Formats: sequence, C-alpha cells, structure tokens
Amino acid sequence: MKVGVLGATGMVGQRFLQLLENHPVFEVSALAASSRSAGKKYVEAVDWYLDTPLPKDLAEVEVERCEPGMDADLVFSALPSDVAGEVEPRFAEEGHLVASNASALRMEGDVPLVVPEVNPDHLSLVDDQRRNRGWDGFVVTNPNCSSIILALGVAPLRDLGVEEVRVSTMQAVSGAGYGGVPGMAILDNVVPRIGGEEEKVETEIRKIMGSVEGGGVSEAGFTVSARCNRVPVVDGHLESVWVALEEAVSVGDVEEAYDSFEGEPQRLGLPTAPDEPVLLRGEEDRPQPRLDRNAGNGMTVTVGRPRIKGGELSFTVLGHNTVRGAAGASVLNAELLVETLL
Amino acid sequence: MKVGVLGATGMVGQRFLQLLENHPVFEVSALAASSRSAGKKYVEAVDWYLDTPLPKDLAEVEVERCEPGMDADLVFSALPSDVAGEVEPRFAEEGHLVASNASALRMEGDVPLVVPEVNPDHLSLVDDQRRNRGWDGFVVTNPNCSSIILALGVAPLRDLGVEEVRVSTMQAVSGAGYGGVPGMAILDNVVPRIGGEEEKVETEIRKIMGSVEGGGVSEAGFTVSARCNRVPVVDGHLESVWVALEEAVSVGDVEEAYDSFEGEPQRLGLPTAPDEPVLLRGEEDRPQPRLDRNAGNGMTVTVGRPRIKGGELSFTVLGHNTVRGAAGASVLNAELLVETLL
Amino acid sequence: MKVGVLGATGMVGQRFLQLLENHPVFEVSALAASSRSAGKKYVEAVDWYLDTPLPKDLAEVEVERCEPGMDADLVFSALPSDVAGEVEPRFAEEGHLVASNASALRMEGDVPLVVPEVNPDHLSLVDDQRRNRGWDGFVVTNPNCSSIILALGVAPLRDLGVEEVRVSTMQAVSGAGYGGVPGMAILDNVVPRIGGEEEKVETEIRKIMGSVEGGGVSEAGFTVSARCNRVPVVDGHLESVWVALEEAVSVGDVEEAYDSFEGEPQRLGLPTAPDEPVLLRGEEDRPQPRLDRNAGNGMTVTVGRPRIKGGELSFTVLGHNTVRGAAGASVLNAELLVETLL
Amino acid sequence: MKVGVLGATGMVGQRFLQLLENHPVFEVSALAASSRSAGKKYVEAVDWYLDTPLPKDLAEVEVERCEPGMDADLVFSALPSDVAGEVEPRFAEEGHLVASNASALRMEGDVPLVVPEVNPDHLSLVDDQRRNRGWDGFVVTNPNCSSIILALGVAPLRDLGVEEVRVSTMQAVSGAGYGGVPGMAILDNVVPRIGGEEEKVETEIRKIMGSVEGGGVSEAGFTVSARCNRVPVVDGHLESVWVALEEAVSVGDVEEAYDSFEGEPQRLGLPTAPDEPVLLRGEEDRPQPRLDRNAGNGMTVTVGRPRIKGGELSFTVLGHNTVRGAAGASVLNAELLVETLL
Repeated sequence: MKVGVLGATGMVGQRFLQLLENHPVFEVSALAASSRSAGKKYVEAVDWYLDTPLPKDLAEVEVERCEPGMDADLVFSALPSDVAGEVEPRFAEEGHLVASNASALRMEGDVPLVVPEVNPDHLSLVDDQRRNRGWDGFVVTNPNCSSIILALGVAPLRDLGVEEVRVSTMQAVSGAGYGGVPGMAILDNVVPRIGGEEEKVETEIRKIMGSVEGGGVSEAGFTVSARCNRVPVVDGHLESVWVALEEAVSVGDVEEAYDSFEGEPQRLGLPTAPDEPVLLRGEEDRPQPRLDRNAGNGMTVTVGRPRIKGGELSFTVLGHNTVRGAAGASVLNAELLVETLL
Repeated sequence: MKVGVLGATGMVGQRFLQLLENHPVFEVSALAASSRSAGKKYVEAVDWYLDTPLPKDLAEVEVERCEPGMDADLVFSALPSDVAGEVEPRFAEEGHLVASNASALRMEGDVPLVVPEVNPDHLSLVDDQRRNRGWDGFVVTNPNCSSIILALGVAPLRDLGVEEVRVSTMQAVSGAGYGGVPGMAILDNVVPRIGGEEEKVETEIRKIMGSVEGGGVSEAGFTVSARCNRVPVVDGHLESVWVALEEAVSVGDVEEAYDSFEGEPQRLGLPTAPDEPVLLRGEEDRPQPRLDRNAGNGMTVTVGRPRIKGGELSFTVLGHNTVRGAAGASVLNAELLVETLL
Repeated sequence: MKVGVLGATGMVGQRFLQLLENHPVFEVSALAASSRSAGKKYVEAVDWYLDTPLPKDLAEVEVERCEPGMDADLVFSALPSDVAGEVEPRFAEEGHLVASNASALRMEGDVPLVVPEVNPDHLSLVDDQRRNRGWDGFVVTNPNCSSIILALGVAPLRDLGVEEVRVSTMQAVSGAGYGGVPGMAILDNVVPRIGGEEEKVETEIRKIMGSVEGGGVSEAGFTVSARCNRVPVVDGHLESVWVALEEAVSVGDVEEAYDSFEGEPQRLGLPTAPDEPVLLRGEEDRPQPRLDRNAGNGMTVTVGRPRIKGGELSFTVLGHNTVRGAAGASVLNAELLVETLL
Repeated sequence: MKVGVLGATGMVGQRFLQLLENHPVFEVSALAASSRSAGKKYVEAVDWYLDTPLPKDLAEVEVERCEPGMDADLVFSALPSDVAGEVEPRFAEEGHLVASNASALRMEGDVPLVVPEVNPDHLSLVDDQRRNRGWDGFVVTNPNCSSIILALGVAPLRDLGVEEVRVSTMQAVSGAGYGGVPGMAILDNVVPRIGGEEEKVETEIRKIMGSVEGGGVSEAGFTVSARCNRVPVVDGHLESVWVALEEAVSVGDVEEAYDSFEGEPQRLGLPTAPDEPVLLRGEEDRPQPRLDRNAGNGMTVTVGRPRIKGGELSFTVLGHNTVRGAAGASVLNAELLVETLL
C-alpha cells in the first residue's frame, strides 16, 4: 500500500520514515512538508537528526506541498496542530485514509482516538465519520505521547476499577520538536510546565478508555490530574502515576494484571506490534529512559516499582515518546485499520 | 559561640563551612572527619567542590577525629547516618549541643525534628530528651532534604485542613554525596528510585506537622505517598505535589495562604533566615532548579503553578537541597535554639 | 555617569544590567532593544534568565528603540552584529561613547579592540577614529568571548616569544544566545563547529596583541589556528591551547610568567577589575567550568596544567563567557576609558 | 571457536557479550570476573547497563574466577590493567590466545598493538613473543580508546608524511567505567584531565604506526602532544586534531586520502569489520557523538571539517569508545588473527 508522510522533515516525520523503511505492507511513495521545503529533494530539505542513516531511496524524492491528490492511499500526518486542522479533513474528503499524530481532530466525537492495545474497537467510528461528513476517506488519530504511555500503563488495571489517576511526567526534549526546548532552558534544569500538555493528558485518556456509544464515545468516569515537567533527557517520557482503584489490591494482584495483559495487535501479529506492549520489570530502579526507551524497538512501554501506600497503587511508567508516543503509534493504528477495516 | 563541624570534608560539610563564613554568632573552631582525614590540614583532606573559595582561615586547620571534647560548644553534624547514630549521642552526653542533618535520631520520640518556620515549638522536647537520657547536652535534628522542601510547601496550607499528600520528586545529584550518582547513571536519564527516600518523606513530614504532647510528638493525621526520582540536575530538588484539603478552595485562597505565611525565624530576625521562607511565583514555568535554587541565598523555597483539578490542589515546589535542605537547615535550627533556649 | 544598554533584553544585555547594579561610576539611565520590545516596560519585555533577581529599579523602565539621543553619555552595546554595524556609528556620530561587545566594527583599523590587561594603549586609536570619521563620540570594542579568554591566557607569555597558537575550544551554550543551541542539539552531544567563531579567534587575537602604529594596529606576527566546539555546559568556555615559543622554556618559567603578570586595570583599581586577571591553579584537574567560571566574580581567567611536550607548551584556560567574555569585558573597557581618556 | 571473556561484568565486558551475540565464528563458552562475582550466575553478578537485553543464553552461566584452564580457546580481556599484567601472561603460557583491551602489555616489545586497518602486519610479532617467552599461546592487544580513534583518523594521511600530531580530546564518561566519573563531576562541566590518558595517546600511536623490525617495533618518528578532556557525553570520543605534514596539501588532497583508504579487515570481509572504517562526512557540523557514534554498528570512525590553516591540516574525528575503542577493537583483532595466523 502506497503511503505518504505529511510533515516529513520534522522530528516525528523522520521517525515515520525510519519506522517505515523495509515495512512489509507500507511503501513510502510521497513526502510532503511546508512550502519552505516543497520542491527540494528530501535530503536537501531535511536536517536528519536520527542516528540511523536517512533511507537511501528517499534521499532524492522531491518534497511536495501538503495537498490532497498525492500518490498515496494512506497518509501519515506529523503536521503541527493548526495546519493539521485545515489539511487533514481535505485529505479525508478526497478519499485518503489519514493516520494522524496531530492533536487537531483527536477530541472530535466521530474521530477515533486509538491505542491499538487499549481501544481497537473505537475504529468503528470511521463509519459514522464518513457518513456525518460525506468523506470518501477518513481520519484516525493517536493520542499525545504522554497520554499513550499513561494509557498503556493504566489499561491493564481496568478490571480493578480505576477511580482516580494522578500523574507527574518527566518528559524528554524531543517531544517539543528539534528547536522546541533551548539548551539554555534545560541544561542542569527542569521546566515544570509544558504548554497544553496537562489538558491533553487529562482529557485524552478518558476518551481512550471510554466506550463507543451511538456514533460517539462515552468517556470513562474517572478523574485525571496531571503535572507535566520537561527534563534533560533526549528521548523517553517517564511518569510517576497514582491510581485509586475500587478494589483493595495487593502488589501481587497488580503484577498479575500486567502479566496477563494482551493486546489486539499482538493477537493479529501486526508488523510494528511489540511482543510485549506493557512490560513490568522487577528491578527497584527501573524503568529508566536511557535503558528502557528502546525496548521492543521503542514500542514497548515499561512499568516498574508498583507500590501500595494508604490503600492506593502507584507505579512508574516509561515509553519512547517519538516512537510509541508518536510515529510508531500512527503506524500501528494504520496497520490495525488495514487489517480490520479494509 | 564556638562551633565544630562533624563530617567536614563531605558535600554537606563544605556547605556548612560556606554558610558559616562570616557568621555573626557562630565561629568555626573545630573540624572533624573520618580517620582517613584526621591529622591532615583541612585543605589537604578535602576535595573542595563549591564554586566559592575554601574559607582561608580554615585551610590550615587540622582535621580531628569525631570525638567529644573538641573545642566547640555546639557541633553541626553532616555525618553518615550509621556513624551519626553512634557518635551524636556521645557528643550530647558530654554536654555539646548537636544540630544534626543526619537521619539516625530524627524519628526518636524525644528528639526534635524541626523546620523553624513550621514547628519551632518542637524544640521544647530537648528538656525531655535531657531528662530521659541524663545528657548534659542534646540533639536537635532537621529533616531529609525532600521532606523539608515539601514541609515548607505544605505548611502554609495547614489551616485549610490537609488530608492527603502525594508527591513525585525530581531530585538533584548533590543529594547523594559527591560520588553517589555515577555520571553513567544520570546523563540523558532519570532514575526512578532513591533508596530509603520515600519512607523518609512519608514519615518525617507527619512528625514535623504533628503536635508536642506528653514529651513526644503526636503525628499529623494525613497520609503521605511519595515517589522519588533522580534527575540530571546539580543542585535543587523539584517536587510535583497534590494536597487533598478538607475545605473546598480556590486558587485565590491558596495564593492568600502562601502570601500570608510567616515564620518564627523571620520574626526573630535570625541571621540565616531568608526574608521570604516560601515564595509563590506567578509565572507559568517556575520554579526551575537552575533559576530559583539560590533564592534567598538558597534558603527560600519557591512554589509555583497552583492548580485545582477535580477539587484537589496541586502545585510545584523547589528548594536548594544542600542549603535549605541540609546545612542551612541545621544552621537555622542552631540559630533558633540559641535565640530561644539559651 | 549615565549609561544606556543597547540590546538590553538578550542574554548579554541582562548580564550588563546585573554587572551595572550598584556600580560606583555608571548609572543605568536608558534601556533599548528591538522594535518588538520598544514601548514596553522592561519587566514585560524581558525573559529574565539569570539566577539573581532583575534589578528592581529597572523593572518599570520603558524600553526605547536603539536611536541616538537617548539619555546616556555612554552606551553599552549587546546588539547583534548586523544591527550594530548600522547603529553604533550613528550613536558615536551623535556624541555618545560606545563600548561594544558586537563584532561589527572590531577589525576596523581605527577602532580599538581592547582587553584592558593586554592592550590598554590601543585606546589611543579613538583620537584617530574621531578625526577620520568626524564623530563627536567614538566606539571601543572588546573581542569575541573565546578570543578574550585566549588572549588573557597567552598574554603573560608574550615576553617568551609567541610564534604559533593552536586552540581547541569547548564552549558553553550561553554564548549562542538563549535560543541559539537547541536542547536536542546539545544533550549527550558535542557540536564541532560554531559558525564564524574560528575566524574571529584567528584574527582578533593578532590585533589585540599587535602594536599601535600610525593610526592603526600592526598585527602580531604569530599564526593562530582554532577549532571551536560546543559542549553541554551552561556558562564558561574551556580551551586546550598549544603555544610554540621562541625560547626553550620549563614549566617553572611558565608558572613564573603567569604569577608575575599584572594588568593596568588592577594598577588603576578599576571597579570591575578582579584581583587576579589570570589565575594559575596548581591542581591537575582544573580549571573546570562549573567550579572556576565565577572566580573573581566571573572576571578572572583560570589557567591550569601547563605541560611541555616536544619542546612546546600547552595548557588549559577557562573564563566566564558572558561576564569576562562579553558584558564584563565592555564594562571594564568603559571603566578604563573613563579613567584614562576623560 | 570457543571464547571466554575476562572481566565480563564491567562496561567493556558487557560490550564484548553484546558484540559476540550471534557471532559467526566465536561462541561464548566462559565468563570470568573478580572473586566478588565468581560463583554467581551472570545475571546476578552483573548490573547490565546496555539498552539491548542481556543475551539470554548467558544469563544463567556461572561466573568463574580468572584462571587459565577455562573452557575457551581464545579469551577476550577487559581486565583492569593491574590485574591484566598478572593474569594475561598466565593464560598465554597455558596455551590460550588472548585478545586484550587492557593496557598492561601494550608497550612490551614483542606484544602486537594492533588496529587491523592500520598495522595488521604487526601480528607477526606473536612468533617472537612465543619464542621469547616459551608460551603455548600469545597475547595480542589493542590500543586505548582515544589512541585507536586518533590512529584511524591519521592513518589515511600516512603517505602525505606525518610530522607532528596535536590532539585535544572530548571523551565520553563510559570510558572511565560505570562509576568512574561522578555525576557531580560532569554535569554542566568539563574535566580537563584523564589520568594517564595523555601519555597513552602520545606513545601508543607511535608504536601502531611504526614498523616491525627484528622482532620488535621501530616507532614512527613524528611527535604527538595530547590534551585529554572529559565531557558530559555517554558514549563517543570526539577529538580536535592538528597534523603537520611534510607535503603541502589542499583540502582536496586530504579528502582523496580519506576516500581511498582501505583496510585489510574489509578486504578479508571480517565479520565485525564495517564497510567503511573511516568515513569522511561533508557537513560542516559533523561528526557529533550522539549522531555518529553508532555508524557502522559503532565500528566506523567519522572524520569531519578538514581545514588547512597556516599550511597545516586540522580535522575532527569521532569514534565509539567502548565499541571501536575497546570491545569491538579486540573482537576485530581476534577475527584478524584467526583468519591470518591459524
């Protein structure tokens, strides 16, 4: 299947190309970016920042403008939110399937916000979406990086009755885009705020863990309170999480919940699905960003140090923010929709 | 008043000497350290790591063993906990006043665990301590660095009815001692565990905010749950805090509570007391370790971003871990006891 | 004397205000910046990034445009080079004295490029400058940060016959301005290039160490080869330096050269002059940016580890790049010219 | 061929196991370490710090003491130098082939110090070594990490007549072992000294680039002067290098020298040999540790920014210090000796 990448020169765009190299189903046939890059060869338009080489067969591809009609059945979107809100609907209208990492449409009622291991059934909303909007194609979105990692850390606990979630994040600088966090802001420092992030975490997870009802999503009932911090780490978001549960649980119960967790992508054997979507490690000092972010090729989320204190569970969860939390999330969504919808 | 410093060569020991240089009340008359250093000149025994010079008049002082009888009325203790548990009682027995940063005796019933702005009245326990133990001197302790910073962040809310506290710390490497955190462990990384730290935070703040009753402390009734993380920052602990309050409050109520907070050291004009023990900043992206750790010469704790979500207050608090959280805490305790007990 | 600061909101501009607070001779009477800031109160126009507070009496000052006629006898310039090249001559023409940190005019024949301890006599060029250009005022410049630090490291060796200089710099991110080096570029990384920096170092030091002849400077005859690297350090440039000398020297000779070095600012007792402009430390592992950058309030350059290998001297030198290497350099130049020219 | 690893629990030891996993020629059959680890299962003895998993088939292997007689034809040595000097000769005497990364025997006359792309012919010294010492086996060593990277950067220039080499290194913390550089020493800092490193660089490269004559090595005639610095980087040593050449050269000549460089391991197709042992990149801001250290699976050394200034060449070179500069170097040496000697 021919795929295009919108926003191909940015950090998430580069991750898309890295993950799609040698992909068994998707073949990158078009690259698009802003007008500043359009018309140039990709190798000239991009500041490639990954430590694997720029895929050779894409170096000479001419970057296009983000306009529908490109030679691609499905497009991955790594566009900035304001651009995505205008561009993605036009692609869907013209019949493209859009797997988007942008936040613009995530919270719209008929747009699926999907983490394949958590709420694969939400994909069914695309029928409503096409009908409502008269589109030939459709848009499927994945959550914000911090929300995905949190959702995967919390989902295995669903049967224990999640009532309240509190999370303090320690997020890597790659999440802000290449120039998003100045070195002067982050060396020997932590910045206790990431604009808009707390609101995204607090709302998105309730939609992800909600249920599809009548052409929309009935959000999960638990409350979420987030405090988001930027730390001097290149890749990998770490989160301290408290989850108040309906049931009184032991650490053993929690370990069993994680160990027995299975996901639809694993059952379907999707190409980008890691063997273990959520890995509970036993060491006292794990997960750590530098050691665990690449687990499962960056698609495994790692949980550690579950504790019960005052009857409440807390744990630490980590995931690779630009792989599982962004480009890899969109690719897995696309694999799921190709496998189940087409 | 002549003072000695036990553990004078370590990181907290050096901070003691930095803070005591040109002190109006205390004059450093004796330096003590382990047998490895004893007998050497201080300048030869120490790897001075601070960016202010080693105080000139101390360079040639001969380092002693940590034995009672040294030429000092009061001794500051920056000893490791296991050594402190054995040495500090011997100094107190022999009539020295001991202001200790070590954890060994903190939770003993008749030993005051004091943050001067929070529980200055706990100093009265020293009478019980002397009587119980038949000591000529006594020991006063200050809490762990993370506990002090948290206590100062929470104390102004006391009248609003604190019911539950959750805290996720982001702690600087200086808190572990010079060699405590390898560069390999912390560059481009976060370590989600600090041995023993969570237990200290969870117990100490309940003693600090408790009340003196019948020769001991009746601990505060609220629950505390802590998750402690080490981040690549040199100095300054940052903490994300949730406080469940009895009363429904607005952000304005919280701001007023902070703005009206006053401490006994400020009323008494103690030399090391900062003008503002707890400073609430209005910027969205503060406090930050590198920008705010030196506020009030490292003695001011900075609070930022109070939010109400789901009826619950959360905020961020920061303090300098080896000044307000260690050496400065002991010095302020000593100033308080000199002013009020002697 | 009333002084203004051009480019007052940037990183060097902020250092100017920090250094001029409570200055015995200069009183800040005007702040100027780009049109984006002009008309705002300083506190609203600036993102204050230093760990000392914004000077209180400047917070409410209205920021002006960079136009001659402002209420200031002398102006300090922290302007970007392209702006400086156009603006500084206009200020000088209108009678202002200009002490500039910008590179625009540094290499002009009749513009003094001064490090007060190295070539104070170059100030005499201002007479030629005024005559040549018909200006009422004049412009005095200081070198690039890396050049100043190198010049102070090399100047004490002048009598030993400097023939060749090679330098590999390890420069702090603050030298690039607040947003100049993305966190993504510098965390866990070194960037082996700083645009234009090598050329500045290679040319400026030859002018500084040259001699005034016939209304211009006859450059020093030695060759200079520089390689400039950016490292993950907040403040403080470290440089590995090789100096080929005419004379065969011992390490003892070199130590004596440093120990006997004296500067005109020290003889004159200028307010910003450090006691020791160049401090040779004896420890094997010094100088280090974090420990030594604040020596002499940031105005002392520290040298360490002189070695003779193959008959050639090498050493390490460090200085605070935004104090001694920028704002402090201009202030010291201004103090020198006020003391000697007016 | 069965191989053992001496010092298997340390940082270089772990790299050995990572590189030997799935190796086509070598099969790890024995793991040895200090007495503290001996007798434990490997998974219990080691703090695995790499971001790839501990090889599964080694987890349960019992760690042995470093004693000859272990079940291995060839042993890789990642021992500390003082231990290596005593242990390695005993293994060689008992008939083991020893490929050592330790410095103990590197400079002995009859011990080959080999970088396979630079001086593969030096392996012939093992005949003299066995004869001289009456050993059944022999020891082959590889240089210090900084020396290997420098040697690969300089070797392509050999035909241009190398006369003098000056190098300023910026070395990663992994080179010092896991606990070798405290976080407090290196965060926001550079340390301008690495004990013993400058001497190793200055002597080893002259042996590597020397010629085998009469059962020993006649060292290369050029002088080398090194200054070694530690920077806050996890992996990857960067070096600023000046090379004075006999011939007057252009940048084009230098580029051609690098482009035409070929190595014996590449001709032989050794399993660990990278396609390009020395890669000259054209970008102005490369090589960079984080982006280039993993080139060629960590075995390619990257050169950038060749400049001619004052008739002298300078450039920047980078290599992965624990792969090409340590474990990978020993493995490639072993592959070369198996291919050419056995």
